[in-house]
Amino acid sequence: MEKARPLILITNDDSINAPGIHHLAATVRSMGDVIVVAPAYPHSGQSAALTVGAPLRINEKPSDLDGVRFFTVDGTPVDCIKLALHAIVPRRPDVIFAGINHGSNSGVNVTYSGTMGAVLEGCLEHIPSVGFSLLHHSMKADFSLSTAFVAAIAAQVIEKGLPDGVCLNVNIPARVIPEGIKVCRATKGRWTDGYQRYLDPLGVPFYWLTGRFVNEEPDATDTDEYWLQRRYVTVVPTAADQSATEAIKTVSAYFEDK
Amino acid sequence: MEKARPLILITNDDSINAPGIHHLAATVRSMGDVIVVAPAYPHSGQSAALTVGAPLRINEKPSDLDGVRFFTVDGTPVDCIKLALHAIVPRRPDVIFAGINHGSNSGVNVTYSGTMGAVLEGCLEHIPSVGFSLLHHSMKADFSLSTAFVAAIAAQVIEKGLPDGVCLNVNIPARVIPEGIKVCRATKGRWTDGYQRYLDPLGVPFYWLTGRFVNEEPDATDTDEYWLQRRYVTVVPTAADQSATEAIKTVSAYFEDK
Repeated sequence: MEKARPLILITNDDSINAPGIHHLAATVRSMGDVIVVAPAYPHSGQSAALTVGAPLRINEKPSDLDGVRFFTVDGTPVDCIKLALHAIVPRRPDVIFAGINHGSNSGVNVTYSGTMGAVLEGCLEHIPSVGFSLLHHSMKADFSLSTAFVAAIAAQVIEKGLPDGVCLNVNIPARVIPEGIKVCRATKGRWTDGYQRYLDPLGVPFYWLTGRFVNEEPDATDTDEYWLQRRYVTVVPTAADQSATEAIKTVSAYFEDK
Repeated sequence: MEKARPLILITNDDSINAPGIHHLAATVRSMGDVIVVAPAYPHSGQSAALTVGAPLRINEKPSDLDGVRFFTVDGTPVDCIKLALHAIVPRRPDVIFAGINHGSNSGVNVTYSGTMGAVLEGCLEHIPSVGFSLLHHSMKADFSLSTAFVAAIAAQVIEKGLPDGVCLNVNIPARVIPEGIKVCRATKGRWTDGYQRYLDPLGVPFYWLTGRFVNEEPDATDTDEYWLQRRYVTVVPTAADQSATEAIKTVSAYFEDK
């Protein structure tokens, strides 16, 4: 008897209309049955936000890829995964892929990324989940230079799965054929110079997010920023559980006489 | 010369109008100078979402607590912290407290929690940060039974700080005087039975988030759910960096010949 083809669920945070998600679906569709469930509108920077206290709708869209079905949810990337698992997929997906994001999710960006929010949701559901991001914001970015790397990573995760509680955050250098793949940790850093200030026509100030990423460990050779600058695809195993168990003893001492 | 009073920045995700944030400000105001910067509207379940591509405004509100200033930002909890640090506080805060949340943020809820999104933002800024949540959703919840515990935790963090990269997720049992404080890890689990389905007047389905938390390790004595059920206040040290470094070796083996 033939083994069932893997079911691949795909989402993103740039919306169903972003070229990156179509490139991802096209790249992996030979590996299994592919269903795309993506936000109807862009949701960059939405982290693992979910819609509470409001309804969600599902709409199927015409497909431009043979055998691939496309759905929208009018919510966040996490809503897409939750509602897809509840009401769209015919069986439990074997893997969840998110992206390809238009823009970096390296380092601390994992905290804010809607793409990685969806991936963490898959991970909490014990489904091997991978987020892919290209370091290029443009909707006209060229995804083709890294197709072989995306395919290789997708194939490995479909074949081998992932350790329970661990998902992958994959970032891809822009405008080059990558040198190779480096599995590493997220660079520590933060965004600074946060807002541009304006005055509205009445003279009342408003603020617009901007900022500059400060790498707090530029020489650390085991980090994603280090290898992205050297034109490698980076793969950061990422934990759904954020407990800092190594700090339990230190913090316990604060309350020993309480 | 007198030592400067600590500057305490407070936010939440239930909005400036929630009783929990007023109780928190009242509880800690004797410990330092307190500035409250909270969302103008509720943002539960907004995780570390931030506002991109849209303006933000700051408004000062009348204060009902002597010496405490109240501001709103018309965005998410993370926006509140970012914009407060950029444009509101007179100096770098010594600590950031978020809450008291109306509802639990134990276990996996940390992933979705807007309260903990703000706390993680403070942590990424290297400011000791603590989220407080009461296991009671009502806007009429009684916060007074645990005031002494909130005060004790706040005082310890003001005095001793926290390990860099670690923040605290504090949960408080409802309707009881807590038995004590347990420092522990987050319970592994997930939300299930995710959506209620309706038909609109035209017969088109829509979905509303619901669900039931499944504790995947109910007997684990080092977890927050275990101790909350036994009427303890739980303190989970929580990491801003989600790298699963223990999985790097396993995942590297996937790509050794690539």
